[in-house]
Amino acid sequence: MSAKKSAEVIIDGKVYTLSGYEEEEYLQKIALYINGKINELREMDQFKLLSRDMQCTLLELNIADDFYKAKDQIEKLEAEVELKDKELYDLKHDLISDQVKFEDMQKAIDNLEDEKKELAAIKTKLEASLEDALLGSISGS
Amino acid sequence: MSAKKSAEVIIDGKVYTLSGYEEEEYLQKIALYINGKINELREMDQFKLLSRDMQCTLLELNIADDFYKAKDQIEKLEAEVELKDKELYDLKHDLISDQVKFEDMQKAIDNLEDEKKELAAIKTKLEASLEDALLGSISGS
Repeated sequence: MSAKKSAEVIIDGKVYTLSGYEEEEYLQKIALYINGKINELREMDQFKLLSRDMQCTLLELNIADDFYKAKDQIEKLEAEVELKDKELYDLKHDLISDQVKFEDMQKAIDNLEDEKKELAAIKTKLEASLEDALLGSISGS
Repeated sequence: MSAKKSAEVIIDGKVYTLSGYEEEEYLQKIALYINGKINELREMDQFKLLSRDMQCTLLELNIADDFYKAKDQIEKLEAEVELKDKELYDLKHDLISDQVKFEDMQKAIDNLEDEKKELAAIKTKLEASLEDALLGSISGS
């Protein structure tokens, strides 16, 4: 774990010194985000009329809403990853079955080639024997 | 879009009436989450010593931190989904190549079987001719 750091951030015009394990860049990004949220709320006329406590709670609710929307998205993405993992598993299984099928077909091809060679050899022998037999019958006549 | 709803939630012991398009269940879940955060902070002795504004900002920072951690996770998950999509694309491509290879091998098998049939037929003819020739030569002698 990295060492404790401290950083000054400005939130709603006030300077806060934050210390923790987070990088200053990260803390500034969060401060910027909170200020953006405050400005969004300030644009609503009703907001100005609310008590400080109410304003504070409304801001907390808004940020928490962003958080829960993000959590929702995380759940959807995790489900998507799970689905794709299952699809990947199935496709890999199909590819393995293909390999088995390839081996069987190659065996069939090898056997057929052997049988073809055998038949070709028999054919040559038979042709020779037939030639001999015909010559024999001629010389014999 | 669903109709505007309103719900009473309790945050830090105060009752707030929230109105919006969110379901009450969702608003209660968020209120519960914020109260949990407040209780976490209250457990730190220093928190009690902070001004109301400081307490409010610290709470906002904590919730925003949860939000940014969630955003981080979303980025990681989106990258994971993208990676799996690429892997799926490649595997599907491999399966298509397998199909082409299967067709080629099947053609080879079909050709070999035709050639085998042809040779077998020639063999039968030659055997018959040889038999005739041998009989002829015997009867001829």
